[in-house]
Amino acid sequence: MSFSGGVATVDTPLLSHLSQSSVTLFQAKAQKQLTFEAIAQRLGRSEVAVAALFYGQAQASTEDIKKLSSILGIDEAQLAWQLQGCPDRGRLVDMPPKEPLIYRLYEIVQNYGYAYKAVLNEKFGDGIMSAISFSTKVEKETDDKGDWAVITMRGKWLPYSRF
Amino acid sequence: MSFSGGVATVDTPLLSHLSQSSVTLFQAKAQKQLTFEAIAQRLGRSEVAVAALFYGQAQASTEDIKKLSSILGIDEAQLAWQLQGCPDRGRLVDMPPKEPLIYRLYEIVQNYGYAYKAVLNEKFGDGIMSAISFSTKVEKETDDKGDWAVITMRGKWLPYSRF
Amino acid sequence: MSFSGGVATVDTPLLSHLSQSSVTLFQAKAQKQLTFEAIAQRLGRSEVAVAALFYGQAQASTEDIKKLSSILGIDEAQLAWQLQGCPDRGRLVDMPPKEPLIYRLYEIVQNYGYAYKAVLNEKFGDGIMSAISFSTKVEKETDDKGDWAVITMRGKWLPYSRF
Amino acid sequence: MSFSGGVATVDTPLLSHLSQSSVTLFQAKAQKQLTFEAIAQRLGRSEVAVAALFYGQAQASTEDIKKLSSILGIDEAQLAWQLQGCPDRGRLVDMPPKEPLIYRLYEIVQNYGYAYKAVLNEKFGDGIMSAISFSTKVEKETDDKGDWAVITMRGKWLPYSRF
Amino acid sequence: MSFSGGVATVDTPLLSHLSQSSVTLFQAKAQKQLTFEAIAQRLGRSEVAVAALFYGQAQASTEDIKKLSSILGIDEAQLAWQLQGCPDRGRLVDMPPKEPLIYRLYEIVQNYGYAYKAVLNEKFGDGIMSAISFSTKVEKETDDKGDWAVITMRGKWLPYSRF
Amino acid sequence: MSFSGGVATVDTPLLSHLSQSSVTLFQAKAQKQLTFEAIAQRLGRSEVAVAALFYGQAQASTEDIKKLSSILGIDEAQLAWQLQGCPDRGRLVDMPPKEPLIYRLYEIVQNYGYAYKAVLNEKFGDGIMSAISFSTKVEKETDDKGDWAVITMRGKWLPYSRF
Amino acid sequence: MSFSGGVATVDTPLLSHLSQSSVTLFQAKAQKQLTFEAIAQRLGRSEVAVAALFYGQAQASTEDIKKLSSILGIDEAQLAWQLQGCPDRGRLVDMPPKEPLIYRLYEIVQNYGYAYKAVLNEKFGDGIMSAISFSTKVEKETDDKGDWAVITMRGKWLPYSRF
Amino acid sequence: MSFSGGVATVDTPLLSHLSQSSVTLFQAKAQKQLTFEAIAQRLGRSEVAVAALFYGQAQASTEDIKKLSSILGIDEAQLAWQLQGCPDRGRLVDMPPKEPLIYRLYEIVQNYGYAYKAVLNEKFGDGIMSAISFSTKVEKETDDKGDWAVITMRGKWLPYSRF
Amino acid sequence: MSFSGGVATVDTPLLSHLSQSSVTLFQAKAQKQLTFEAIAQRLGRSEVAVAALFYGQAQASTEDIKKLSSILGIDEAQLAWQLQGCPDRGRLVDMPPKEPLIYRLYEIVQNYGYAYKAVLNEKFGDGIMSAISFSTKVEKETDDKGDWAVITMRGKWLPYSRF
Amino acid sequence: MSFSGGVATVDTPLLSHLSQSSVTLFQAKAQKQLTFEAIAQRLGRSEVAVAALFYGQAQASTEDIKKLSSILGIDEAQLAWQLQGCPDRGRLVDMPPKEPLIYRLYEIVQNYGYAYKAVLNEKFGDGIMSAISFSTKVEKETDDKGDWAVITMRGKWLPYSRF
Repeated sequence: MSFSGGVATVDTPLLSHLSQSSVTLFQAKAQKQLTFEAIAQRLGRSEVAVAALFYGQAQASTEDIKKLSSILGIDEAQLAWQLQGCPDRGRLVDMPPKEPLIYRLYEIVQNYGYAYKAVLNEKFGDGIMSAISFSTKVEKETDDKGDWAVITMRGKWLPYSRF
Repeated sequence: MSFSGGVATVDTPLLSHLSQSSVTLFQAKAQKQLTFEAIAQRLGRSEVAVAALFYGQAQASTEDIKKLSSILGIDEAQLAWQLQGCPDRGRLVDMPPKEPLIYRLYEIVQNYGYAYKAVLNEKFGDGIMSAISFSTKVEKETDDKGDWAVITMRGKWLPYSRF
Repeated sequence: MSFSGGVATVDTPLLSHLSQSSVTLFQAKAQKQLTFEAIAQRLGRSEVAVAALFYGQAQASTEDIKKLSSILGIDEAQLAWQLQGCPDRGRLVDMPPKEPLIYRLYEIVQNYGYAYKAVLNEKFGDGIMSAISFSTKVEKETDDKGDWAVITMRGKWLPYSRF
Repeated sequence: MSFSGGVATVDTPLLSHLSQSSVTLFQAKAQKQLTFEAIAQRLGRSEVAVAALFYGQAQASTEDIKKLSSILGIDEAQLAWQLQGCPDRGRLVDMPPKEPLIYRLYEIVQNYGYAYKAVLNEKFGDGIMSAISFSTKVEKETDDKGDWAVITMRGKWLPYSRF
Repeated sequence: MSFSGGVATVDTPLLSHLSQSSVTLFQAKAQKQLTFEAIAQRLGRSEVAVAALFYGQAQASTEDIKKLSSILGIDEAQLAWQLQGCPDRGRLVDMPPKEPLIYRLYEIVQNYGYAYKAVLNEKFGDGIMSAISFSTKVEKETDDKGDWAVITMRGKWLPYSRF
Repeated sequence: MSFSGGVATVDTPLLSHLSQSSVTLFQAKAQKQLTFEAIAQRLGRSEVAVAALFYGQAQASTEDIKKLSSILGIDEAQLAWQLQGCPDRGRLVDMPPKEPLIYRLYEIVQNYGYAYKAVLNEKFGDGIMSAISFSTKVEKETDDKGDWAVITMRGKWLPYSRF
Repeated sequence: MSFSGGVATVDTPLLSHLSQSSVTLFQAKAQKQLTFEAIAQRLGRSEVAVAALFYGQAQASTEDIKKLSSILGIDEAQLAWQLQGCPDRGRLVDMPPKEPLIYRLYEIVQNYGYAYKAVLNEKFGDGIMSAISFSTKVEKETDDKGDWAVITMRGKWLPYSRF
Repeated sequence: MSFSGGVATVDTPLLSHLSQSSVTLFQAKAQKQLTFEAIAQRLGRSEVAVAALFYGQAQASTEDIKKLSSILGIDEAQLAWQLQGCPDRGRLVDMPPKEPLIYRLYEIVQNYGYAYKAVLNEKFGDGIMSAISFSTKVEKETDDKGDWAVITMRGKWLPYSRF
Repeated sequence: MSFSGGVATVDTPLLSHLSQSSVTLFQAKAQKQLTFEAIAQRLGRSEVAVAALFYGQAQASTEDIKKLSSILGIDEAQLAWQLQGCPDRGRLVDMPPKEPLIYRLYEIVQNYGYAYKAVLNEKFGDGIMSAISFSTKVEKETDDKGDWAVITMRGKWLPYSRF
Repeated sequence: MSFSGGVATVDTPLLSHLSQSSVTLFQAKAQKQLTFEAIAQRLGRSEVAVAALFYGQAQASTEDIKKLSSILGIDEAQLAWQLQGCPDRGRLVDMPPKEPLIYRLYEIVQNYGYAYKAVLNEKFGDGIMSAISFSTKVEKETDDKGDWAVITMRGKWLPYSRF
């Protein structure tokens, strides 16, 4: 079983940046001691998507709400009410990030940003990789040098319109 | 052939943020009309690493310098002189990035930062994914919905030391 | 019917940036499950104006207050009291916006700002497009490529006074 | 004829933020005293797109380069060389903008950002209006109250992927 | 009567930036539906000074406190207690201001700052116009083009000491 | 004669923020030792407007250019060429201003911003004082307490459109 | 008697930046209507040091706590408990300061910073004036031109170590 | 003789922030190896004022210019030309200061700002200490603990006008 | 005994930046009047690590929690619940730090950052010193010049991966 | 020999932040291919101090200048001229640092800042560790887990003066 870090919870000072739904979800998760992996399997979604949903950075479908309420033992009507709007994304991370783990991702953008752009422009032309038509996953690999985290990001290529 | 965007060059206002080596390398690349893919194949390194090297965000080995001078027709001694120090990384991208393509990567960190952290902590415990013991690549996939850019990041997991 | 995203509500962390009237209005709207389109039709105002009014970015006339209290089932005197002042606009959006949808509008200003200025100056001379003597609307278009959002902004041209 | 503001040129302090191609294009435009409208008609593109191209915020096709060199009397090879890369967008406008005309556009995002988001979310669901699959135009209307600038923005609606 | 905008009140999110005295004063003002003009006349001070006093940006004399408590129906001892210190000025306005009306004043400083300095230096020599030995007023003028707001600022000229 | 501070010139580090026209105009002004007052009288414009024009913050008419070239002894064609575009305003003053004289104006906005807003809203309703349909002047008054600078700002009142 | 400004109190919005001890001390001070001068004399410390202690920017000795509890009528154990840690300095003043009085001190550093450095370096060599081995006082002088505030700062000169 | 730190000069990267007059003055000072103390004595001004004048933060009188040209061996007409305008103050020091010596002064404002305000308000009432009607000096004291730098600031007290 | 500063506690305004566990731990520590040194000895960890754990910047093992609950008299289940997640690091210190003691550490990075980099690059090649595989300690030395604080940082050297 | 990273040089974009002396010194160092270790041994100073001196962050004595000119083959008079002033420290590193190696040091301050403060306050009382009466060194350790960088900082403890 790939579970080694315990169950992710929310730090107190972060609470004021979160929606009511996040508080509800994280409390139930801590109570049930469920990992995102466990929830994701039962929800049929990716682990990162589930974590993002908990942090209010992704939207739950009606189906998701039904399943979550059953998995986590939360009243479905309450969860539906708290999750009914479209997420107000992006308020969670201080930029530049102060959290060391998140900073490393930021540093990758800072150091390799133009390298990614140059390679993508050569491969696809003028445009961007969408962060909306987008999915991502996290995997763990282990070799004799230790453990490796592998993050994959996959976004639709959007060429600039000509007008 | 996966070459559709022309040959990546350097915009004039960016020049003042770049080292002498970058100017030398990009000019030769434009002159020879070589893509990073073509250079990477002959250098035996990844495309993104080569682009990073051009932007002064990665280091060239003595072997790399020899090969680059031959591929790009640059005097080897001059290139060695310009590339002798350890890179002074990170000055290239305005943060938050103003360039739309690079902003999308930043937005992914902003929106999914805590989701990545939660999932990584659950999978690996307390620590970070290294951005130094790290490699990355860019791939192009095409399906009936269009083109997709796939970015993979692979970093060593570093647990916090206990002291 | 053009209603596909559910009923817009307010995210918890945003509440501390909103006036009392916004809380009152959004709660009633969620209770009644009314869209801005539905309210706008009964109020005889534009959809965006109604949303702006809910967020405290536009002013309600005495007539508006009367109608809103009836449409939403809010005590008229209470609403009149909460809406009596001139709005204190502009505190809502973090700039640069962290919300991806709002960021795209910001990016348009960042990328096309000087292009708009150049074209407007050529068409009208030295001046500005007013954001006060101003109206705006949002429309939905659908073609074989998918859905398109169309935002129209119409502002009075104000030439710089000569003095 | 809708030409009243003279020919848009580039202010000296802005030059250091512009690419070589911008300098070349604006100098030729000033020499020939051509408006963006005139160039746009001969190029078969929109006025704003042409202005954006001049400021290095849009890409020229091979066809565009050929036509521009003829319209403006610039050596085609030189122009092709200067315009060969993908634009490095977004460095032009200080944010928040200090230029009053551009600030008004920024203020519209600041004041109406959440209103646009609420209305768009209700009309389309969870997603964004693309600023890449995007076109825009500027029109002039005149009535008895004076002149009005009308800016239309049209972007593809991108729903968030479910993963 | 020059009263057309209703009675100025305080927006909820602003409350946390205000002193207790401001809350007391604004509540009484709203209750009594008094304009600053009406209060100023009975207090024998300028309208802007009274508004500044309400926002905690100016000091009340013992005489002012007596009169204010009578005009607004506030217990004098309570008001005296709340107003006893010297104001802690300047925390009210976000800079750059997000409020459009206040931004216009800021924009005047941004655009005409050096012009004011040049003209003042030519008229008075090296020094500043005091913002402390200072008074200001707002007037309304109406002509066939519409209404005009006239703001007058009058400050003591302070030459730099020679030492 | 109200001339006591010498002739306003431009400080060297400011030069890089100014347009070519500013350099031309200020050099000629210093050579001729003319005050803005003297130039304004001969130009038939206000002193502040002339200073703003010198700093690239206001536009010169064809008539102005003709007169300026004669007053200052500058070649008319050269001046016309340098002044042909619409000004790119607002890049001159660091915000918050570091220059003490300009800071005092900024401080007035910071301290009295909401007082101005409250009084203006009570006098005119919901809207702004235009900084575009706007004029301003500087006067010197002397009484037994010393010299006083009086700045008057007059702007069109723009009510928010109802839509 | 040098007492003319009343008794310094704490503005409500500042309270959230202050330690519990500050609230306790300021409330007792206001209740007793004591100036810092009066407290300082009985405490045997400088006036500024006492004010700094009230704002949590200086430390109280056991002796100070005993005396303060007697002067201000505060329970000694409670005061000792609230003051037991080393102060967490520096969170009080927004930088740049928005308070006009404090801004003037900041402006002195901004304008004369390098002048002080040059003179100090010439007098003492390479080093700094300590802000820790440091004392300061405020005096009032009056002459026929009015009142003058005199601030004296005295800090140990610390030469840079050679290593 | 109190000269121990050598002759203050200007660091190369600072040059781009300085006026032409500063370059002229500092070069001559270095050539002649004169301290500010020596120049101040011959000029009849304070040492800090002279240093401020060299950095473009204070104005020279016609008499000063005559003396400086003789002390430093600079052509008087050239110096007069370079020093003719009123200084454009405040651009010299990055804020927060990065220079350790200047940072200590800034830290004093940060830590003791409110203590100074409280004491000054109690001594003088509501107002500020002027930084314009202002003089300052630096002295060196030596005791058995080492050397001490003493900075004295003396500014006119300006009470807020009542209006 | 090396105990001279009393027992470190937490300042009230800092509380809102801390997790619940920090509040619990610091309150118990103050109650028991224990230093970090005393706790560290009984916990078998370094003093700095214990302080970091109290501030929520380091993780406690199950063993640590058991011991802490016994040393400090806190209910073990409660402590375990509050400490179960991975820390959300980095939100504690304002950057640049306003606290003088912490600022000095920041200043060392500011002044010696490139010197450290140059020396480390020469000693180890291209890479970084890890802040994760990292330990640190604080020691006190005393000689005839007074007391000296000695901070030692020891981090794994991570060379940049070649890819 | 502990030399593995080549000879530290200066990156081109950094040059504009450096003094003339830095350029002179680094060019000679690269020419002679000398490490800081080699120079430090011959100069009798610490490696970090020498690197700091090269970057203009430490002062050279007359003796140092003599030796440096001989070690590096630079004309002594030229070096003495370029190094005669007291350094203008702190302009080198962007804060927050963008360079990954330097960022790790910054992150240590960010994460452990309050832990260091708490431990230091408990060991020494109220005060700071001086960054001026300060020395530092870098060492390399190797064990079976790899290489370790050890940074030691030693600063005089300065207690806050009582006044």
